[in-house]
Amino acid sequence: MAWNKVAVVGAALIKFGELFEQSYEQMAAGAFESAIASVDKGFDPAQVEAAFVATQRGTLWGQEGIGGNTVPSALGISGIACTRIENACPSGSDAFRVGAMAVASGVHDVVLVIGVEKMRDKSAEEGLLSRAAAGHPIFTRGETAPVLFAPFATRHMHEFGTTREMLASVAVKNHYNGARDPFAHFQNEITIEEVLKSAPVCHPLHLLDCCPQTDGAAAVLLVNADRAEEFTDNPVFVAGFGVATDHPYLHEKSTFTAMTATTAAAERAYKMAGVGPDQIDSAEVHDCFTITEILDIEDLGFVEKGKGGIASLEGETAINGRIPINTSGGLLAKGHPIGATGVAQITECWWQLRGQADQRQVEVRNGYALQHNVGGRGSGVAVVNILTNRR
Amino acid sequence: MAWNKVAVVGAALIKFGELFEQSYEQMAAGAFESAIASVDKGFDPAQVEAAFVATQRGTLWGQEGIGGNTVPSALGISGIACTRIENACPSGSDAFRVGAMAVASGVHDVVLVIGVEKMRDKSAEEGLLSRAAAGHPIFTRGETAPVLFAPFATRHMHEFGTTREMLASVAVKNHYNGARDPFAHFQNEITIEEVLKSAPVCHPLHLLDCCPQTDGAAAVLLVNADRAEEFTDNPVFVAGFGVATDHPYLHEKSTFTAMTATTAAAERAYKMAGVGPDQIDSAEVHDCFTITEILDIEDLGFVEKGKGGIASLEGETAINGRIPINTSGGLLAKGHPIGATGVAQITECWWQLRGQADQRQVEVRNGYALQHNVGGRGSGVAVVNILTNRR
Repeated sequence: MAWNKVAVVGAALIKFGELFEQSYEQMAAGAFESAIASVDKGFDPAQVEAAFVATQRGTLWGQEGIGGNTVPSALGISGIACTRIENACPSGSDAFRVGAMAVASGVHDVVLVIGVEKMRDKSAEEGLLSRAAAGHPIFTRGETAPVLFAPFATRHMHEFGTTREMLASVAVKNHYNGARDPFAHFQNEITIEEVLKSAPVCHPLHLLDCCPQTDGAAAVLLVNADRAEEFTDNPVFVAGFGVATDHPYLHEKSTFTAMTATTAAAERAYKMAGVGPDQIDSAEVHDCFTITEILDIEDLGFVEKGKGGIASLEGETAINGRIPINTSGGLLAKGHPIGATGVAQITECWWQLRGQADQRQVEVRNGYALQHNVGGRGSGVAVVNILTNRR
Repeated sequence: MAWNKVAVVGAALIKFGELFEQSYEQMAAGAFESAIASVDKGFDPAQVEAAFVATQRGTLWGQEGIGGNTVPSALGISGIACTRIENACPSGSDAFRVGAMAVASGVHDVVLVIGVEKMRDKSAEEGLLSRAAAGHPIFTRGETAPVLFAPFATRHMHEFGTTREMLASVAVKNHYNGARDPFAHFQNEITIEEVLKSAPVCHPLHLLDCCPQTDGAAAVLLVNADRAEEFTDNPVFVAGFGVATDHPYLHEKSTFTAMTATTAAAERAYKMAGVGPDQIDSAEVHDCFTITEILDIEDLGFVEKGKGGIASLEGETAINGRIPINTSGGLLAKGHPIGATGVAQITECWWQLRGQADQRQVEVRNGYALQHNVGGRGSGVAVVNILTNRR
């Protein structure tokens, strides 16, 4: 395949949290303004030709209608092309991929990818997570997110001897990182003991094994790499990406010790980028639950299958470990405003590759960072994007 | 801009109507199977690399969650990349554009674009159109679709002397065409008298000035044009496309005698295709209401501003007229299952350019057909795609 090279020249997120005081449009505008401010040589908003807006629910939270095409007006750039991308939890990462293809095609030179989600304006009963579960009204009833992920945890424990302490070590590490990320929802450190003693949700997942419900927005600016130097001397490039679906329902899964959507998406992204997991310097992966990160680091090839729990407990995935994972605090500490999540992960990769991650900075040896989400009835779809600072 | 040429090698829709007996997934599968069957030299479903699913509400109709990534499993092609595209009424046409960019980029060689919408499973109160109106809960209350379009009609009547008979002539013409389209929801002819005497909805729009609520699905297969001959000796190519947004609220509109999103989207599409309105042989345009088609044919450049009503009444837009519009029956007769609408319009253009439109066939002189939708709080976004049979 021959495609035009794509550069990321700006990236930002707003402080994640319970943002009752900000509307959907305000959050989007905040992320856009910060992304503009992040462009080294300045950026005129009028240069944006097309936008891709990632959101699971759009503006109306339970009465969703039009989450994408109303955004340009709120950003002061009404008139541009604008498309909403929805792909469950990977909505933001898939919007990044689609935006990259719009630039790679040569149709657009300057593209905005923006993710935004209002999670907290409605009660849990009325909110997204009670409504997002597709399927048979009786047979799949009660299949909330923890229910969809817990069987992977029990099976992993059974097959590989993974313990609740190993699961908890993921939450502890990500909260440690989140305490060093000024944009994280939670910026407090926690202990393994605290995770183990937190309220049970769905065995073996307890409250601190679960990501919070968080409002947020994030934005990145993509340009044709031929024009990158107009915007920065320190660009990051899109090296590759991959998306894969799996059968959506639990009873259709071929395994409970891996997420096959992640494996397939990763294989495609590595092939496109021409690299393997050994060349990745840091990764932002989908830790909606502690077990998810353990599966992710195995399925992405960072650790051997079955060894994700012990690798986490032993610090291999810490900022200064062999393969730093979720330096931003991940979904567990930074939060998971669905449409914004992938775009915020891209932002962390961008900072890492540009050496701007402050206390969270990893050693960039090979010049590659990976971003990953899985979602859609738990594990029905996965997206992997790989970025590089290599020209 | 330099982009890889994209060919349409298959296209189909299911019979539109009140499809209570079919699930969302069944409708999608029906459209996919028919699209496969439409490929002249045969098509192996395993060749699909990526899908773009257009739907406004997804599977759950009012409790929407994941409308895209569950579709491949239902089609028997689980594993492929799949992304949901939502852009209000132009969702289907925008999915076509995004799918075309995925092929144009060189990332994917074979892409499925599928549009599907369940409109009739819930009551009008619970259904999409009562929930799709974004905005202030008091100031924009009651702004249903007819309310958002009627002011354009009254202003057009005031400025240009457009009459209710002229509006009605659009519905009469589109029902005439729909009566010749085996996939149309309504296949009966109507008279101007019947339109005028139908129940008032929002002045000056009466019931037969309004499109029905319809279930449906449609699918097209896009390939890299370099590979088109593997599939057909009679391909249709993507000549150009354009998307434009406008301020979403009525009080922000700069005019009520044109839809500026349509004008801007058309300008972009014509420029990309290197043609003008005079070279278009037939067009499928957004006739959610009779006034919309009148505005469309003006805003797309087919008739002078203000002359759309008289042009319709005098038959300029009939199948054998100067510029045939909505030969399929349009939204007014064929129906408007939102996500499916644009993809079905593309299918009609494909048939016209291949000479397969039977009783509805127009004379193909220049080899270009145009497809258009406008939507998103009425006129907040427009998409134009231009197809050609010229190599």
